Amino acid sequence: MSPTEPTPSIPDPAASDAREPFRHKWWGWGAEGARFDIENRPRLWPWILSLDNQTDEIPARLPEPDRASIRLRSPRDTDAFRTALADVLPEGRLTGDEDERLRHAFGRSFRDLVRLRTGDVPHPPDLVAFPESTEEVEALVAAAVAHDVVLIPFGGGTNIVGCVEPDAEVRPVVTVDMTRMNRLVELDERSGLAVLETGMFGPQVEAALRARGFTLGHHPDSFVYSTLGGWIATRSAGTQSNEYGKIEDMVVGLDVVTPTGRLRVKPLPAASNGPDLKRLLTGSEGTMGIITRATMRVHPIPEVEDYRLILFPSFRDGVQALHGCVREGVMPSLARLSDERETEFIAHSRPVATGLERWLQKPVKAWLGLRGYDRPALMILGIEGPRRRAEHLRHSVLRILREHGGLDLGRKGGEAWKESRYDVPYLRDYLLDYGFIGDSFESATSWGRLEELHARVVPAVEAACQEVTGRPAYVGAHVSHLYETGACLYLTVGAHSGRGYEHLEAEYDAIKAAATRIFVEEGAALSHHHAVGYEHGPWLGAELSEPGVRLVDAAVSSLDPGGHLAPWNLGPTARQGRSGSP
Amino acid sequence: MSPTEPTPSIPDPAASDAREPFRHKWWGWGAEGARFDIENRPRLWPWILSLDNQTDEIPARLPEPDRASIRLRSPRDTDAFRTALADVLPEGRLTGDEDERLRHAFGRSFRDLVRLRTGDVPHPPDLVAFPESTEEVEALVAAAVAHDVVLIPFGGGTNIVGCVEPDAEVRPVVTVDMTRMNRLVELDERSGLAVLETGMFGPQVEAALRARGFTLGHHPDSFVYSTLGGWIATRSAGTQSNEYGKIEDMVVGLDVVTPTGRLRVKPLPAASNGPDLKRLLTGSEGTMGIITRATMRVHPIPEVEDYRLILFPSFRDGVQALHGCVREGVMPSLARLSDERETEFIAHSRPVATGLERWLQKPVKAWLGLRGYDRPALMILGIEGPRRRAEHLRHSVLRILREHGGLDLGRKGGEAWKESRYDVPYLRDYLLDYGFIGDSFESATSWGRLEELHARVVPAVEAACQEVTGRPAYVGAHVSHLYETGACLYLTVGAHSGRGYEHLEAEYDAIKAAATRIFVEEGAALSHHHAVGYEHGPWLGAELSEPGVRLVDAAVSSLDPGGHLAPWNLGPTARQGRSGSP
Repeated sequence: MSPTEPTPSIPDPAASDAREPFRHKWWGWGAEGARFDIENRPRLWPWILSLDNQTDEIPARLPEPDRASIRLRSPRDTDAFRTALADVLPEGRLTGDEDERLRHAFGRSFRDLVRLRTGDVPHPPDLVAFPESTEEVEALVAAAVAHDVVLIPFGGGTNIVGCVEPDAEVRPVVTVDMTRMNRLVELDERSGLAVLETGMFGPQVEAALRARGFTLGHHPDSFVYSTLGGWIATRSAGTQSNEYGKIEDMVVGLDVVTPTGRLRVKPLPAASNGPDLKRLLTGSEGTMGIITRATMRVHPIPEVEDYRLILFPSFRDGVQALHGCVREGVMPSLARLSDERETEFIAHSRPVATGLERWLQKPVKAWLGLRGYDRPALMILGIEGPRRRAEHLRHSVLRILREHGGLDLGRKGGEAWKESRYDVPYLRDYLLDYGFIGDSFESATSWGRLEELHARVVPAVEAACQEVTGRPAYVGAHVSHLYETGACLYLTVGAHSGRGYEHLEAEYDAIKAAATRIFVEEGAALSHHHAVGYEHGPWLGAELSEPGVRLVDAAVSSLDPGGHLAPWNLGPTARQGRSGSP
Repeated sequence: MSPTEPTPSIPDPAASDAREPFRHKWWGWGAEGARFDIENRPRLWPWILSLDNQTDEIPARLPEPDRASIRLRSPRDTDAFRTALADVLPEGRLTGDEDERLRHAFGRSFRDLVRLRTGDVPHPPDLVAFPESTEEVEALVAAAVAHDVVLIPFGGGTNIVGCVEPDAEVRPVVTVDMTRMNRLVELDERSGLAVLETGMFGPQVEAALRARGFTLGHHPDSFVYSTLGGWIATRSAGTQSNEYGKIEDMVVGLDVVTPTGRLRVKPLPAASNGPDLKRLLTGSEGTMGIITRATMRVHPIPEVEDYRLILFPSFRDGVQALHGCVREGVMPSLARLSDERETEFIAHSRPVATGLERWLQKPVKAWLGLRGYDRPALMILGIEGPRRRAEHLRHSVLRILREHGGLDLGRKGGEAWKESRYDVPYLRDYLLDYGFIGDSFESATSWGRLEELHARVVPAVEAACQEVTGRPAYVGAHVSHLYETGACLYLTVGAHSGRGYEHLEAEYDAIKAAATRIFVEEGAALSHHHAVGYEHGPWLGAELSEPGVRLVDAAVSSLDPGGHLAPWNLGPTARQGRSGSP
């Protein structure tokens, strides 16, 4: 796709049924028709095939997922629960429809994609509910308690660690799809505060706010298909988190329906009124209550949005440059610095006409090589904000980057990145068609430990891939999400055993475990922005310490004593390893 | 005192016994010899006396506090507890000494000062412990659990809401004075992370860090006499919180000794590993554990520290100017904007040679009056940081302030303010010598509600003072601690009934309740930075909502099931009203 056309992955938020455009196809990422644009990426396959030099033939496509072959187990008896809600949720908004059950059976982790393709759906929900108001959510929760039903709050279903997936469970399970609660309730322009229903998808949040001159500024890679409530429940981070904060920094107030009543966190700019409860509910992964409304900090639409590409002689130079920005107190709104290996991947995987291919041409490469950029590291740089502030920021940041060898490649490539920034997850599905594991693992650590972590974890994951697949793999990394004391380190991985779908999950598990082990050993974060779920659950005890885990359990029990809300997340089931992951 | 001399209230952190210089006299604010410098404030009494125009005579001084008249009740039996700790804490570091018990009986609220002067000390601790290591704190906590003793973590004892005060209690009570744990343990310069023991007083924190080129940047009014652990336990805010954040924004990791084990919050720049536990422990007011070490975000010593005074035609103009700064994303490091009334108070109460008296002289006043500054509002403005950033900030902020009528009075008055900024609490003691209630009440609210809150709460407190004392009182306010969505509103109050010590507490309670009632009605914070304790306890249920209160109780119980740590804070006793407040 060209950088000036809108990418096909962003539907129109004003479409007639506001939820539909943002719903995934049943078996993968993105809407039914959306696909990865391989035609425009002629360098990708040759580069992939060059990685192990054993063949120059693209592997055979694996079988297409077959909806007809999937038969979900019969729903459990939910008659009493349905009767209790008969006057609340009309026909169609509390449904046992098999397509809906399948759509809500998984998130969109790599394993979820594999299991959907192989028809391995052991624990679908028995019903799916579509409430349209906080009162309806209260009725759902009350009925769940009365009839011993388990509820799973569900936003866009993009979670990649199992947060929305039912586990083996004797009680009936009802997924609560929040996406019909998608209104901007109130906007206080002077305070920069918006009350939003949490079922809004990213494009809906932005469309509603931008119509009034505001933005939330939260743009995770999942933006198009994820919701405000999901972001809050999992402590999500958007690409411009340097400017606008992680989602937990944006939450000012919350309305949460819990099995023991409505919990309201007053919207306050700051307070000293005991522990900050909104920081406890943010990251609760559905276990403490269903978040129905959030008062969010919003910003006037930035007057400047300047995105550009910067080339560094090395990853190390780029890290020094970012640290220099942090030290001078001039944090770029976005900075995503790839290491040399990921830079190579990007150069070969970006669409034609992004401006990047120019840097692969021989004369340009030669020119760059002579100047020390023979194995460069690429940075995507974003500067946003009110004009005067942004101009000062751009000037200061570019000066610091130059001092560390940063070569400004200009705005064309930056704009191209911005236009297609939500396309990355499609690549994972595309590669999976050919039996590739493609995924990302992320953490966060201090500036003092960042380079050492990078130097340890990349070879460890490379070695795990080699061991698991018997072949060399691609493992690259980038630094993004800057903080005064450290940053996020984000690995991108591609590996291929050629052994077919049935081996992929075990192969993936081994590779992922290699990454997580290093993160934990190095004192880095278990995750920077992808939550715990069951994927990180077994590591949670070490992460939070024994009393910390007890504290979380007590918090959950105080609000949901009967375990009626996503009881497999955070708690003992997650920490001991869920049975749900076969 | 002159603006260039160091104020006598900041002792030398390198003094031989590092704790001593920062300890309060037993009956009031500040070290034994420190006193409010009235000689240098010739305009103060005439202005006070002009408030109700009934007399031009300074009221009689009330009796001096008399240590000899205070006899504490006999300590309860702590033999078993002491025996258990005999090998851990040597003689003198676990003591029943009456002077130490008295020093640790109260914080420094207005009521505490009155009670010390009247010898009303109903619930002193039975023992005071002075641990020097985390292991000693663990031994104390273990012995408390084993022998059913209640512990109160105690830093500098400046708390003004009762957080360090024992309540009526059948169990023995031991105050744990943390001020011997006062070392900088580790400094990671590249990450800007310092591991600090929590018993460090403000000047010790800054001396240790500045010797290595760093600063924490936390300067509450209590700075000289309060500790890192106290700041964390109560969600303190320093004057430069716009630049460096509230204390909860600075905490990166925590080590906490709880009755159920050592809780460690890993130091991470950001994470998505479930609820953010450090935000739950920050603000725990001693109830969840004893915080022994904290990993704090620190900053290179700012290259620029530019403090100046700005005059606005009105409070409203100043508020608009601050909102303008926030909207342009250029937050001054410090901005304290007084309303017209507080400006008058400041002009009459600041020492000679601060530069402020010039503006009271007739020709200058006339000149100002002609230009619309006849009833002006004064702002203290601070710009700090790395040179380039600070220069841009100063330029931008001064431009915006000018656009709203801000008149730059220059740096002389700003430097004078900075030099004497920790002197304010001494005024409270001084006025109390003459039977005056002098105190401050603070909250926080959104920009959209700030002016309305100011317009309601100031007259309400004035009316309460008039009703309680039968005389006109002084009630002023300032805005400080700016956030994108709102700010702190801080009232300063002076009232005088002339009825003597025995009436002051009831008078104070009525005035304080009038302020709190409006804060709560307006949806503003119960407190912005002074914690809950027993003073705000009865309002906590409304503040956090019913499930929120249950959540806090569950968190406390999970870590301290036996209620061995400051059990009167946050929990049911605080919310129902402590018996400890007579």
